[in-house]
Amino acid sequence: MNPAEHLARLQSLNQTAAFNRWCGLEVVSVEEGRATIAMPWREEFGQYAGFAHAGIVGGFIDTACGYAATTVSGPVLASHYAINCVRPAVGRRFIARARVVKAGRSQVFTACEMFGETDKGEVLVATGEVLLVPVAANAA
Amino acid sequence: MNPAEHLARLQSLNQTAAFNRWCGLEVVSVEEGRATIAMPWREEFGQYAGFAHAGIVGGFIDTACGYAATTVSGPVLASHYAINCVRPAVGRRFIARARVVKAGRSQVFTACEMFGETDKGEVLVATGEVLLVPVAANAA
Amino acid sequence: MNPAEHLARLQSLNQTAAFNRWCGLEVVSVEEGRATIAMPWREEFGQYAGFAHAGIVGGFIDTACGYAATTVSGPVLASHYAINCVRPAVGRRFIARARVVKAGRSQVFTACEMFGETDKGEVLVATGEVLLVPVAANAA
Amino acid sequence: MNPAEHLARLQSLNQTAAFNRWCGLEVVSVEEGRATIAMPWREEFGQYAGFAHAGIVGGFIDTACGYAATTVSGPVLASHYAINCVRPAVGRRFIARARVVKAGRSQVFTACEMFGETDKGEVLVATGEVLLVPVAANAA
Repeated sequence: MNPAEHLARLQSLNQTAAFNRWCGLEVVSVEEGRATIAMPWREEFGQYAGFAHAGIVGGFIDTACGYAATTVSGPVLASHYAINCVRPAVGRRFIARARVVKAGRSQVFTACEMFGETDKGEVLVATGEVLLVPVAANAA
Repeated sequence: MNPAEHLARLQSLNQTAAFNRWCGLEVVSVEEGRATIAMPWREEFGQYAGFAHAGIVGGFIDTACGYAATTVSGPVLASHYAINCVRPAVGRRFIARARVVKAGRSQVFTACEMFGETDKGEVLVATGEVLLVPVAANAA
Repeated sequence: MNPAEHLARLQSLNQTAAFNRWCGLEVVSVEEGRATIAMPWREEFGQYAGFAHAGIVGGFIDTACGYAATTVSGPVLASHYAINCVRPAVGRRFIARARVVKAGRSQVFTACEMFGETDKGEVLVATGEVLLVPVAANAA
Repeated sequence: MNPAEHLARLQSLNQTAAFNRWCGLEVVSVEEGRATIAMPWREEFGQYAGFAHAGIVGGFIDTACGYAATTVSGPVLASHYAINCVRPAVGRRFIARARVVKAGRSQVFTACEMFGETDKGEVLVATGEVLLVPVAANAA
């Protein structure tokens, strides 16, 4: 598939996930082994101090990594993910850039950085890594 | 604080988090170093295959661990968390049970199990661990 | 296999790993989905403050989890592991107790606690989780 | 401190860690927020299939990240680390390159890549992230 085909396919896939629709999450760009996604701030994202909740951060990073993995390995499911909350997750919009570190037959290793768009520009708010299993491998 | 005071305080804190309110998350029981929370399924939780999204799973576990930590260390912020998705996250209701593994001055280690309530009873769907920083330590 | 057969097999496997031999690591007990291992302190384990090095801690926990997984899933390889260093790793002898959390076709989730034997008894020094891939799945 | 001073200080610190001496680990280069270390293969590193043991991989990555953190935050202790074993850890020599992702008052986030030197050049064998606590913060 070329990047435009990957993008169209992931934009379509993205619309099938109820949580992604609720988040207002959109697929910005895709290439082999890489994906960039974005979503605007919404009120319901807040934890008790008003930043985006760790679950919003984790779900966003998990989604970006899943899309990056899909470009290389087809349908995948996350089996493990880890998130580093390096700064309060604030921003009028969030952006995540994910990449495949290593795609194997039974596991795909990915990594991601998440940024908040603020008046000072893009600020790194979290990093994460997601381990995914190709659905084909799981069914083998 | 006794368990009833911890519970009242966390139920109140829980209402201040917009994401937790949206999730319908409730604090079920609390004791020194332990917290149990629950939330009913809602349509918007779904990822593309219809299970609860990894972000919902992570946010739920993160919240349970934060509440367990708070009973020991006061206000805390999550700095790192890791989630194992051991089974599809399905259930008409989810329950998470978190405990403090070790509370230090500058870091609190916690662990959690998350279950889905199904016709077959409670099924383990995810495990996780969260590393939290007491707000007091962070400000030191 | 019964526990005695599992134990004999793992004790034999343990002798084939050069690092485990160097560590003086021994398999103490095994049952379906569980393994306990031990090793005495040795001078070369120390990091700069004189505790056991994080690599010694990680290698010990990884080994215990691998052995627990093997009782359920046959030969396995670790693909991801995470270690929490909750206290300085000191002790005249270390003990790790690992268990399988969930064994799937393509991945085995395990968890472990590591203790140091001190004059005050067993002290928890680290916890960890290891994600393993059955060699059979990897070759599929 | 300039890079040469950082390097001299870390080479000296490295000699105080018994495990690092046993590993033959050396500090190759250092700059603000970054460290590169290396070590030659030795027979005792092997796990049962003859690759470097996960503990050797973890200890090596942990050390590289600790050194990178030290250049920014002074003495540190690892509290959490996670390792992805993306390929069998083989090579006549190993190299790890670590960098600080974010240095806060109470926690330092770092990331690392580990390579094996083979006839085909440098091959990525593992990635990892280490969360460290400045000793000063811990004592606060």
